[in-house]
Amino acid sequence: MVNAPADPNWEAKVRNSFARQGAMATIGARLSHVAPGEVDIEIDRTPAVQQQHGYVHGGVVGMIADSAGGYAGFSMMPAGSTVLTVEYKMNLMNPADGARIVARGRVVKPGRTLVVCQVDVYSIKEGSERHCALMTQTLLTVAGKSDDLQV
Amino acid sequence: MVNAPADPNWEAKVRNSFARQGAMATIGARLSHVAPGEVDIEIDRTPAVQQQHGYVHGGVVGMIADSAGGYAGFSMMPAGSTVLTVEYKMNLMNPADGARIVARGRVVKPGRTLVVCQVDVYSIKEGSERHCALMTQTLLTVAGKSDDLQV
Amino acid sequence: MVNAPADPNWEAKVRNSFARQGAMATIGARLSHVAPGEVDIEIDRTPAVQQQHGYVHGGVVGMIADSAGGYAGFSMMPAGSTVLTVEYKMNLMNPADGARIVARGRVVKPGRTLVVCQVDVYSIKEGSERHCALMTQTLLTVAGKSDDLQV
Amino acid sequence: MVNAPADPNWEAKVRNSFARQGAMATIGARLSHVAPGEVDIEIDRTPAVQQQHGYVHGGVVGMIADSAGGYAGFSMMPAGSTVLTVEYKMNLMNPADGARIVARGRVVKPGRTLVVCQVDVYSIKEGSERHCALMTQTLLTVAGKSDDLQV
Repeated sequence: MVNAPADPNWEAKVRNSFARQGAMATIGARLSHVAPGEVDIEIDRTPAVQQQHGYVHGGVVGMIADSAGGYAGFSMMPAGSTVLTVEYKMNLMNPADGARIVARGRVVKPGRTLVVCQVDVYSIKEGSERHCALMTQTLLTVAGKSDDLQV
Repeated sequence: MVNAPADPNWEAKVRNSFARQGAMATIGARLSHVAPGEVDIEIDRTPAVQQQHGYVHGGVVGMIADSAGGYAGFSMMPAGSTVLTVEYKMNLMNPADGARIVARGRVVKPGRTLVVCQVDVYSIKEGSERHCALMTQTLLTVAGKSDDLQV
Repeated sequence: MVNAPADPNWEAKVRNSFARQGAMATIGARLSHVAPGEVDIEIDRTPAVQQQHGYVHGGVVGMIADSAGGYAGFSMMPAGSTVLTVEYKMNLMNPADGARIVARGRVVKPGRTLVVCQVDVYSIKEGSERHCALMTQTLLTVAGKSDDLQV
Repeated sequence: MVNAPADPNWEAKVRNSFARQGAMATIGARLSHVAPGEVDIEIDRTPAVQQQHGYVHGGVVGMIADSAGGYAGFSMMPAGSTVLTVEYKMNLMNPADGARIVARGRVVKPGRTLVVCQVDVYSIKEGSERHCALMTQTLLTVAGKSDDLQV
């Protein structure tokens, strides 16, 4: 479904961009899988990312899902461009109550301007996985803007 | 559009629940407005919440928007119940590049089981506001489950 | 992922309910697959369902997708209940330009109150299929209300 | 919020495009308001557009909402371009049980490439209006493609 990446530097650019996201460090997120059109991001369920019941906050689940989809899409974009999230929709289906939460972003429709991704989020507890959220996301390829440009 | 809250303790329960969310403390979020069916949450654009270009991370915008809508809805729910986000959809329309970002959650449709909220997010820079994101959110009233129950 | 239907009459109730939807007849939609948690609905690309470029109207794609997901969910609901769509989100990824358009609804998360479905829509042209839209949908089980109650 | 339309022919192009949508005629939809960045579309609740309970089918509500938003956006697009719906999300909040259903589409964020609209749908019964659905929609400006091009 996903062809070869247009940018030979696809893996390094994803890893470098992720490393520059202060927000990902703040919640303890790590890249656990990077392939063409596929990126997984995971976190541990520490108190710093919990909501009032002790589950991982739905907004934090959204953060790692948004980044997993965004980088899955970015891996397929041409050199010299950056990525913006246009919109996403997330259904929270089961509590994020595992020791570890992983968001798996996959490109569904790679387009020149717009890229559509789906992200499945799993809660991992004692070795078994439970599907806790799903996201559909639209990304924009911003041509002619470097990914390391600062505001 | 929004009637009187069913729970006379509505304000305290919102403030107490927010205070128990480790994830909100982690990103430096604060409650800046609490009224029946209306909650605003804001953050400063510090490096801890930024993405690679220095804007506030879209996922962090989603976190404060999700909480603002969630607490707007929770303020209208009966005593002895808690709130779950069923799903939300967010459009990111302008970069979150202000010094301060505020998410304003409002109940659109208060129902017994389901509550629909809209959240508008503004980027505030040198006193002027720019509409940077909008969210539509579906919440579930979970009856018979205390909001301070721990996982 | 999907267990046995709670209602032994699941297939007949889906077919009967579909037959009572005037809107489905109006656009020429037909049920092409009915299984527990799975419903496909298809239409032909006639002028009556086209938009200005001659593709099937995005709203018509939404109609068959909404019904395919709704009936997939309804097939799993207990006897004596009916189904309401709470919300859905659809991405239109490729033009619906085939001779035939099929929407395949599948239950992703069967819950007692809420059911989450995903629907994939394909455009079929000279025997080959193209993924043209995807929908994520939240349904509500309305207990104690017959599906054939009239307004 | 919405500036002057870029295309002096904005009103005629909206009306002409609507008139070419067979799907709108099929469900008896009519344009009831056309202004820069604003389009209303309405239908009567006839059997041809109903679901099993006699309400207007959620998919038909989605059709008129999608078109209302799409034409609100199209009214602001430059000459020589056409419009595509990228995605939309709709919450169905109250039954569409009025004699007449009207969808009011408004441009929220007019961009060069992407346009974001919100659409509010009202059910009108004996002169009073009830908010029955809301949609948020992302549109794509397709430059260099005439709106009356046929597939």
